[in-house]
Amino acid sequence: MKIILDCMSGDLGPQPAVEGAAAAVKRHGIEVMLVGKTDALEDAIRNSGVSRDGLSIRDAQDVITMADDPVVAIRDKKQSSMVVALSAVAAGDGDAVISAGNTGALLTGATLLVRRLPGARRGALGTMFPTARGHSLLMDCGANVECTPEMLVQFAHMGSAFYAGTMGVSSPRVGLLNNGAEPKKGTPLYVEAHQLLRAAADRGQLNFIGNIEGRELPNGAADVCIADGFTGNLVLKTFEGVGLYMASQIKAMLMKNAATKLAALPLRSGLHDLKARMDYKEVGGAPILGIRKPVIKAHGSSDARAFASAISQTVRFCESGAIANMERALAALKAEA
Amino acid sequence: MKIILDCMSGDLGPQPAVEGAAAAVKRHGIEVMLVGKTDALEDAIRNSGVSRDGLSIRDAQDVITMADDPVVAIRDKKQSSMVVALSAVAAGDGDAVISAGNTGALLTGATLLVRRLPGARRGALGTMFPTARGHSLLMDCGANVECTPEMLVQFAHMGSAFYAGTMGVSSPRVGLLNNGAEPKKGTPLYVEAHQLLRAAADRGQLNFIGNIEGRELPNGAADVCIADGFTGNLVLKTFEGVGLYMASQIKAMLMKNAATKLAALPLRSGLHDLKARMDYKEVGGAPILGIRKPVIKAHGSSDARAFASAISQTVRFCESGAIANMERALAALKAEA
Repeated sequence: MKIILDCMSGDLGPQPAVEGAAAAVKRHGIEVMLVGKTDALEDAIRNSGVSRDGLSIRDAQDVITMADDPVVAIRDKKQSSMVVALSAVAAGDGDAVISAGNTGALLTGATLLVRRLPGARRGALGTMFPTARGHSLLMDCGANVECTPEMLVQFAHMGSAFYAGTMGVSSPRVGLLNNGAEPKKGTPLYVEAHQLLRAAADRGQLNFIGNIEGRELPNGAADVCIADGFTGNLVLKTFEGVGLYMASQIKAMLMKNAATKLAALPLRSGLHDLKARMDYKEVGGAPILGIRKPVIKAHGSSDARAFASAISQTVRFCESGAIANMERALAALKAEA
Repeated sequence: MKIILDCMSGDLGPQPAVEGAAAAVKRHGIEVMLVGKTDALEDAIRNSGVSRDGLSIRDAQDVITMADDPVVAIRDKKQSSMVVALSAVAAGDGDAVISAGNTGALLTGATLLVRRLPGARRGALGTMFPTARGHSLLMDCGANVECTPEMLVQFAHMGSAFYAGTMGVSSPRVGLLNNGAEPKKGTPLYVEAHQLLRAAADRGQLNFIGNIEGRELPNGAADVCIADGFTGNLVLKTFEGVGLYMASQIKAMLMKNAATKLAALPLRSGLHDLKARMDYKEVGGAPILGIRKPVIKAHGSSDARAFASAISQTVRFCESGAIANMERALAALKAEA
């Protein structure tokens, strides 16, 4: 297996990408193609002192920045690390792509260069978030602000296949984000999506458990939570924001004075566990689903551990056959329509 | 000033309502009309040993439950404490209504019995939530799952007047919930609402500060956060859910063993402060805005302190002239249209 890693688009430059790649090679016995400026990548390999085993370099002299317009950047920056990486996976030079760059550009590039799965109406962005039961997937997280009921149903099938494949859960519980539990709750989009998801469950195609309210998300009420991109983005960012706020409040409380600092010492391992549970770096990246090959958005500020974790998740994604399962589900949806 | 209090619809029965009312009478020198079964209210006054000064009773033998259909309940349960309370304020027997009952029924009853302000398209539910800077108002929180841009603009004016009046802030910062900061972000509803809010700001009618992302909510990025009821409900409940989850995780961490329990002792005051900051009971109730009189939804599980806090907030609401300000803003919107 060969993972293609865009090493230039992250906030922290190529060094953590290269270190994460080397760690993943060691862990999984895979190959990683490092994409970026050859000189910079050679420097990073040398500076980090990692083994070259399993690593190869594909040169790309340009880079897409966070300020670039997604569509213009994909069209015009042909020598950017992101376009070169996506073109490489499209040409069959590797099994999957990971990038920590501009999310809009990665979505656009995945659609234009790697292309959608047959029947997939849109590519959608999923994000894993921490819960009391482990982790759940929320999608769409912002790729599609306007959705149809049929798109939400496709997201459910694709998210279910991804979660099953990467988390080793045979029949993930799929929930529909909503402002109430009753099937008739929500906008017309959500009422109709609920009916379609219920019908899919009745046919045995999905483990649809009904509507999920915002309050239940941290409890892990569903493995896969479905929403349109506008709602999903706001819910995900609120989730992150409140988690960060609470963490900062706890820290301020513990650092208040000498007595609280002393008191905090026996709590260190508990705090560490809590931080790890709320930490995206433990989870990997955000998959762009509905695309012919696995395309993973790593967090912009990913360090070596985050890159290694994203690569591990991507290895599971590739090995699981989830893409083939998505293709089958989309074909079945098409046959029914 | 006379506040009308539905004492029968809360989860904990009339006792905390009566105690909260007595505390508010003492604090503000107001009158409170207790609405409910006379026998039960007399018992509650006796059992709690509070003074009768400022308290009066209006009998209502029936009660609307959380399981009741809102529209059917308001139509058929004429002797319910909620309908009697709303009818009393509509008849001018008091200045405002507070109820801890069925939110849908209170919204329906406020609209049908107390009636909307002239020009108000809908009644909307606001909720105060805790932030790093104090408290912000989010509306709509679920009364209207489908909104027009004009409704969101009305919510902004009404929320701004409420926040100014109850929080003593002269020009509250109004933000539009969105999945990005740029004016063109979001669904067509949000793009158009943004334009209308910007125009209102340019005319000096609103302190519109632009789009607010979910991540910024806990920072108090805006005093008044505007959304449609579907999105607002999901964001609010996610906010509450993550806050509760984090609090439970911290508690579990501190109660893990004898060493952590001992360590937690010097942290008690800090934890108490954090809990108070995240606690709805400190903030009061959720206003239903767009109605001719103040109608406040208290939390279903309100205790005496929560009822007293909701009454204090309602006193400020009445004294502030916020309803007259909303009426003026709605008239100005109508004149421009």
